[in-house]
Order: sequence, then structure tokens, then C-alpha cells
Amino acid sequence: MKKSKPAKESAVIMNELVLPNDTNGLNNLMGGRLLHLMDIAAAIAAQKHSNRIVVTASVDNVSFRHPIKLGHVVTLHAKVTRAFNSSMEVHIEVWAEDLTSNNKVKSNEAFYTFVAVDQSGNPIDVPEIIPETDEEKKMYDGALRRRQLRLVLAGRMKAEEATELKSLFGVQ
Amino acid sequence: MKKSKPAKESAVIMNELVLPNDTNGLNNLMGGRLLHLMDIAAAIAAQKHSNRIVVTASVDNVSFRHPIKLGHVVTLHAKVTRAFNSSMEVHIEVWAEDLTSNNKVKSNEAFYTFVAVDQSGNPIDVPEIIPETDEEKKMYDGALRRRQLRLVLAGRMKAEEATELKSLFGVQ
Amino acid sequence: MKKSKPAKESAVIMNELVLPNDTNGLNNLMGGRLLHLMDIAAAIAAQKHSNRIVVTASVDNVSFRHPIKLGHVVTLHAKVTRAFNSSMEVHIEVWAEDLTSNNKVKSNEAFYTFVAVDQSGNPIDVPEIIPETDEEKKMYDGALRRRQLRLVLAGRMKAEEATELKSLFGVQ
Amino acid sequence: MKKSKPAKESAVIMNELVLPNDTNGLNNLMGGRLLHLMDIAAAIAAQKHSNRIVVTASVDNVSFRHPIKLGHVVTLHAKVTRAFNSSMEVHIEVWAEDLTSNNKVKSNEAFYTFVAVDQSGNPIDVPEIIPETDEEKKMYDGALRRRQLRLVLAGRMKAEEATELKSLFGVQ
Amino acid sequence: MKKSKPAKESAVIMNELVLPNDTNGLNNLMGGRLLHLMDIAAAIAAQKHSNRIVVTASVDNVSFRHPIKLGHVVTLHAKVTRAFNSSMEVHIEVWAEDLTSNNKVKSNEAFYTFVAVDQSGNPIDVPEIIPETDEEKKMYDGALRRRQLRLVLAGRMKAEEATELKSLFGVQ
Amino acid sequence: MKKSKPAKESAVIMNELVLPNDTNGLNNLMGGRLLHLMDIAAAIAAQKHSNRIVVTASVDNVSFRHPIKLGHVVTLHAKVTRAFNSSMEVHIEVWAEDLTSNNKVKSNEAFYTFVAVDQSGNPIDVPEIIPETDEEKKMYDGALRRRQLRLVLAGRMKAEEATELKSLFGVQ
Repeated sequence: MKKSKPAKESAVIMNELVLPNDTNGLNNLMGGRLLHLMDIAAAIAAQKHSNRIVVTASVDNVSFRHPIKLGHVVTLHAKVTRAFNSSMEVHIEVWAEDLTSNNKVKSNEAFYTFVAVDQSGNPIDVPEIIPETDEEKKMYDGALRRRQLRLVLAGRMKAEEATELKSLFGVQ
Repeated sequence: MKKSKPAKESAVIMNELVLPNDTNGLNNLMGGRLLHLMDIAAAIAAQKHSNRIVVTASVDNVSFRHPIKLGHVVTLHAKVTRAFNSSMEVHIEVWAEDLTSNNKVKSNEAFYTFVAVDQSGNPIDVPEIIPETDEEKKMYDGALRRRQLRLVLAGRMKAEEATELKSLFGVQ
Repeated sequence: MKKSKPAKESAVIMNELVLPNDTNGLNNLMGGRLLHLMDIAAAIAAQKHSNRIVVTASVDNVSFRHPIKLGHVVTLHAKVTRAFNSSMEVHIEVWAEDLTSNNKVKSNEAFYTFVAVDQSGNPIDVPEIIPETDEEKKMYDGALRRRQLRLVLAGRMKAEEATELKSLFGVQ
Repeated sequence: MKKSKPAKESAVIMNELVLPNDTNGLNNLMGGRLLHLMDIAAAIAAQKHSNRIVVTASVDNVSFRHPIKLGHVVTLHAKVTRAFNSSMEVHIEVWAEDLTSNNKVKSNEAFYTFVAVDQSGNPIDVPEIIPETDEEKKMYDGALRRRQLRLVLAGRMKAEEATELKSLFGVQ
Repeated sequence: MKKSKPAKESAVIMNELVLPNDTNGLNNLMGGRLLHLMDIAAAIAAQKHSNRIVVTASVDNVSFRHPIKLGHVVTLHAKVTRAFNSSMEVHIEVWAEDLTSNNKVKSNEAFYTFVAVDQSGNPIDVPEIIPETDEEKKMYDGALRRRQLRLVLAGRMKAEEATELKSLFGVQ
Repeated sequence: MKKSKPAKESAVIMNELVLPNDTNGLNNLMGGRLLHLMDIAAAIAAQKHSNRIVVTASVDNVSFRHPIKLGHVVTLHAKVTRAFNSSMEVHIEVWAEDLTSNNKVKSNEAFYTFVAVDQSGNPIDVPEIIPETDEEKKMYDGALRRRQLRLVLAGRMKAEEATELKSLFGVQ
């Protein structure tokens, strides 16, 4: 019988200093470098939940709202929101802080999905998630809808069959 | 008056060798590292079109279908599909090749958007795109719909106002 | 008048994945790479406390007890223990975890000291530390003794004047 | 019987953004970093032709004519010019472009040679090259002379036996 | 019977250019990066003496006295001072040089200890050290005292049993 | 009046550990990475002689004779052989050592040339070289011939005017 584990046991915090090679011509952290950091934080969360090697299956739409400067500290919070057989959705929040001015802003957030695999690279089932806080429950419930959107966007589900998703567009 | 430039002038090809530090415990290229490479290729395409410094504004949903191994060559093709004032949508296709077996597969594709900025970091208008081939025209036309999806997902447009997008779900 | 700040406000957590380039010929994390990560975590803690640029002034004796393997996750906890004018002592604890076996061990701990500097690189005073928990109070009290040891070892204080330190050797 | 393959099938294009760590005290790309990029581009070309693991055997004289600045884009074009048993000569052209001013200059060119090896590291024969364009034919013909120069400079051929090379110095 | 080898046979010199990614917000080499370089230099010295894979066991108190700037050259001198069964103490001196002004200062020094291990990671005996110069003899003699301090600080020896160390504090 | 400096004052020794990211699919150091290390060692030698910022002007033909493996130590010896106005020729010898078997081989050697520049990047005169040992004198004398070969190969001198070089081919 498959084990269940509380969402909070997968929580990961990462703090990173923005170094010169991470920046573009305006001394801002490059978006691609941040996507890389988010992938590492999220992968650790998925590994903590599954106790397996994990591979990135997808990343949902990510927006970058605020420039993050050289020398600032990037803080990433990652936590598994829900598991589906061998796959896990991970929510990541990114904060950027200028420690000399004590100014901290939420930079962006995203959902990455990972698949747990065995040593040969074959998918393997993972424990279910037990959401406990209100926030965790909201994330758990929304996961179905986000999963349908992913499948529609990847061309693996017809839009009209995406029951959860249709409500987003006010459709019966 | 704003200049227009053919889409093909922004085309960028990148070839990268997968090195040990790019890989996870199964000797596969980590998804986050690939997102980083895609951001660099797409940023160069956006720079070629705009002749400006560019910053990543968003990345659309990306799926990773095939593992890419240590020592394989990753080939990225990036091209601007459409410009909207100061922002540009860039399409990226990623191919992975095992040169010792001559086996080449399409790994994934994605859309990144960039904003052109001046030296102070303020948005600045860019030339319009002239799509020429059938593929470029299809990409150009679809850009409106993808833009609405981005705005809806970022909470900056109401789903019921996303006219282009609603057709995706068979809604009037 | 100089501000005081609770120790806990400087607390920093870092999680890092051990990558191939971080390892030696036995696939173990190299000691020097870990010292580098500890310096970054501790520097962020000192920056959080002082809201200043900080430079590393010294690292105390560090022992490495357990090998940390490729693919394991290193978790660092850093917190300022006490401030002396422009300098701050930071305590760092390092944990190593094999997420596939769920096996977590304390790898080592250390004390780094940092000096807060202004834009010209000159030392500048920092807020005092308010220790709140029992652990924080114990760390705060021991800081004087460790400081004397540092000064004696650096040849900047005579051993016989190191009152706090002598008690360590049962001397009156 | 050994296969032959057209030169163009080995063609590789690489685009790289010059990042801070690639530069010296004047914000110029360091020559050694460029030699490294050229080696990777050329190795991929040699791998495409041979479908083998390849090792660098030599690099011919390279001159650096123009400084390449931080933030510029380096474009490398590599193509195999001729094969000799297990070795391949690869021609690389390097272009540097300041995308904000649309100014593109040819930085330099070079010839690298690679040896195809099997899994034990022993040399193994590769297909011959079929030059098709005038440029490819000129490169193919010049390869013999460059090979003699390499052998003379490495002390593995006597200058007076280098028939092809002597014509360079107007000698009968 | 265990071989003995002169200290000088383990001597290692490393020169490193300070690159952008090695520096903090004041363009100074970060302390943690220097600790990393010192570990590599010292590990090579311990490998030269033992002809074994080595792992870092500890680093003694290190003070950083002078900022080292971007573009400066760091010179590290490492030499094994004494061997104890499977462990070796290595002394490292670090010099920093601004080559454009010809100004060279001693930055700091430190003692690292390493353990030689076999392919399974088990400790294995190493040759003894033969100190030859006066400096080498002084280092060799002091090694006992420094070893006791390490054991006391790591909680593996009682302070009152540290005979060599007590003399440091004028205790009988 | 221009100063002269002995060749030996420019001598530089570098030791580097071959790390995973430096290697290809056979765990051998990649040629391009070695060319990068040689450039850094040679640039430090040229900086020591000139006390100026230097830029790489060219690298002469380099052959790679022996594979260098992951975990081996690469030792580079660089020294300026001769100065011509603002340019300097640097000789580099590379040794590779497997410290666990105590097996050391000469990997290769090369000549790099550098130009000393002022803060605006303009060439600036450097001191002349005083060769002292027999080896230094031989290098000093050969520098003229190597310089002519570089100029002929770069198309900046006609072969028939390369008096020094012609003797290499037994021509009057």
C-alpha cells in the first residue's frame, strides 16, 4: 500500500547570492539562470517527497516581474503540492532582497512537475500528498486544473475534455 | 516611423555539448540547465531583432519529453515570431543528438518573451516582424492567442475577455 | 544610538545539490568547496544582520567528519551569534542528506567572522545581537572565548591575557 | 569499404554570449576562452563527420585581431575540410557582433585537427571528405600543405621533405 | 617498512587570476573562494607526498588580512609539514600581487589536514616526512602542538591532557 | 630609456587539478580547456614582465601528444622569451602527472604572444628581455624566426622576405 506524506515534509528553502556570471549587460540576474535555480530547488523538494531520483517533466508559464540585481540575495521556497502516480507538481516562490537596503520583493512563482524514476530511468510510483494548511489545500485542489492545462497545451488532451479547466473560461 | 524587419533576420542557432556539471544522477541533462540555454539562445534572437539590451519577461509552458545524455549535442533554433511595442515573442526548438549513433530527436520547444530596454532599464519600442514563410506566418498569427493565455495566467486579463483564447475551448 | 536586533533575524538556510565539479576522485564533495558554500551562507547571515557589504575576516577550525557524496543535498544553517563593533561572528551548521535513502547526518559546524564595511571598504559599526533562545544565549556567551582564541592564534593577543580562554585549560 | 561524406554535413554553428567570467581587466573576451569555444565547435564538427568520440590533436597558429567585448555575441562556424585515416582537419571562423550597434566583424579563423578514437582511446578510421563548393575544394587542397607544416613544426617531418610546403617559400 | 620522503618533494605552487565570479560587491576576492583554492593546492601537496587519493580532514583557524582585488594574481605555496599514520598536515602561504603596480603582499597562511584513503575510502598509512631546512624543522616540531589544539577544539581530547598545548598558556 | 629585465623574473608555475567539467566522454582533459589554462599562465608571465594589462595576440601551433585524465594534476611553466616593442613571446611547457602512480609526462609546449596595453587598450612599450641561461638564450634567438613564421602565416609578411625562416627550409 502506497504511503502518504504531509506536504510540509517536502519544503525546501534555498538562498543564493547573485554573482557576476549570473547577470546580463544591465547587472540583472538573467531569467534563464533563475529558471535553473528554480529547477534545482523544486527537484530537491520532489526528491524529499519521493526519496527517488527525479527528472523535470515540465515547467508552467513563468512571468518575471522585477529585475534582480548583482549582489542581491534570491530566496526560493519550494514545496510539493500534489502527486499523481509517478509525477509530482512543485510550487516555487522566489523572493529577491537587497540586504543593504533591507528591501525584499516577491519576484515570481511557478509550478514545475517532476517524474520519479528508478535507476534505469523508468517511472515509479510516489507517496500521495497530505495537504494540511489552507494554503496547501488550495494548492492541492488547483493542481487538477493546472494539470489539465498542461495536457491541453502539450496536445495530449482535447480542450473540450478539460472539465476543470473550462470553468476558468466560464464555460459549462 | 517604426522599422519592420523580416523574422528570419533574428534566427539564431546554438550548439552545446552536454558536460558533467549539466547532468543529474542519471547522467541526463537537467531541465533547469536546458531552460537556461534556451533563455540565452532566445535572448540573442531578441537582441538581433531589436538591437537593444533585452530582459526575459516570461516563459510559456515547457514539456521535457526525452532525456538528453552526457556527451550529447544540444542544438537550439530560436527566432522572433512577433513583436508587440517593446516586447517580442521568441520561438525555440531544441534538438538532441547522439553523434556516435547519429540519432537525432526533437527534445522540446517553447516560447519565451523579452522586453527591449534602454540603458536605464525602461522599455523601448522595437521594429515589427515581417513573417515570410508559411511557418513564420502561422507562428505570427498564433502569437495573439498565446499572449492572451499569458495575460490570463498572470492574472492581468479576465478569461472571458480573452477572445482569441476562448476559441481554443470551443466557446462563443 | 546603535540599534539591537534579535539573532533569529539573521538566520539563513541554504540547500545545495552536490554536482560533479564539486567532487574529488571518490565522488565526495571536496572540503574546499564546502568551505566556499559555508562562507556564502554565513556572509548572507552577516549581511542580513548588518544591512551592509561584509568581508570575511576569519574562519575558525573546521573538521570534516563524514564524506558527502555526489547527488546528495547539503543543507546549511547560518546565524549571527554576536557582534563586536564592526565585526560579527556567524555560526554555521552543515547537514548532508542522501534523499534516496532518507539518511541525514550532521556533517560539521564552524564559526566564521565578518567585518561590515562601507562603500570605500572601511569598517563600520553594526547593531548588537539580542540572543533569545537558550542556544542563542550559549552561543552569545561563548563568543568572547572564541574571539580570544582567534586573537591569540593570529598573534594579536598574548595567551596569558586571554582570561576567558585560560579557563578552557583549567588555569587560574 | 570506407564511406565518404560531403563536407557540408559536418557544418556546425555556435552562438555564445560573452559573460563576465570570460573577460579580462579591460572587459575583453580572453584569448584562451575563445580557443576553448573554438575547440568545442570544432570537436562537434569532427564528431558529426566521424560519428566517433574525438580528441584534439593540434591547433594551428591563431591570431587575435579584434577585441571582443563583454555582452557581445560570438558566432563560430566549424566544418571538416579533409580527413586523413583517423584524423580530421577542421576549419573554424569566428565572428563577433555588438548587437546593440549591429556591428559584426570577423575576429579570426583557425584550423584544429582531431583524431577519432574507439572506447579504449585507440585511433579508428573515419570517412573521407567530399568537398563540393569552390571554398570547400580550396580548403581540401590546402590541407596537405598545412599538414606538412604541422609535421615539420612538431619535428616529425624534415623541412626539406615537405614538398607542398616548400612552394610557400618559392623553393624548387 | 614505511618509506620516508623529504618535505620539499611535496611542494606545490599555484598561481590564479582573480576572475569576476570570484569577487563580492567591492570587487574583492571572496574568502570562501580563497579557502577553496587553498584546499586544492594543499590537496595536491598531500597527494604528491602520499601518492594516494586524499580527503580534507580539517582546516585550522584562518585570518584574512588584506583584500585581494579583481584582476590580481593569487600565489599559493603548499608543503606537507608532518605525517601522522594516515593523516598529513599541510602548510599553505598565500600571496596576492597587483602586477600592474608590482605590489605583492602576504595575504594569509593556514594549516589544512588531509587523510590518505584507498579506493574504498578507508584510511591508509603514508610515508613519514623528513624536514630538512630550518623552516621545515620548525613546522615539523610545531605540528604536534597544532594537532593537540585541533583535537581539543573538536572535543576529542581533554584540554588538561594537551601537554604540548598547555605551554602556550604558560601552564606547567 | 626603456628598462630591461631578466627572463627569469617573469617565470610562472601553475598547478591545476583536472575536474569533471574539464573532460570529454573518455574522461580526458579537453584540448580547448588546456589551451585556456595555457593562456592564463602565459598572460600572468607577460603581466609580470610588463606590469601592464596584456591581451593575447596569437598562439603558435600546439600539438597534444598524451591524454591527460580526470583527477590528474596539470603543471604549467610559463616564461617570457623575448619582447618586441609592445609585444612579448611567452614559452609554456605543460606536464601531466598521475599522483597516485607518480607518473609524470611532458604533455606539450607552445608559444603564445601578448601585447601590453594601457587603460584605453592602446599598445604600450615593454622592457626588453635579458636571457641568462643557455636555454633562455636559445629561446631568445629562436624568437625572431618564430615571429617571421607568425607574420607569414597571418599574411602580413611575404615568405620570400622571411630571411630567418627560410633557413629552416635549407634555402639561401
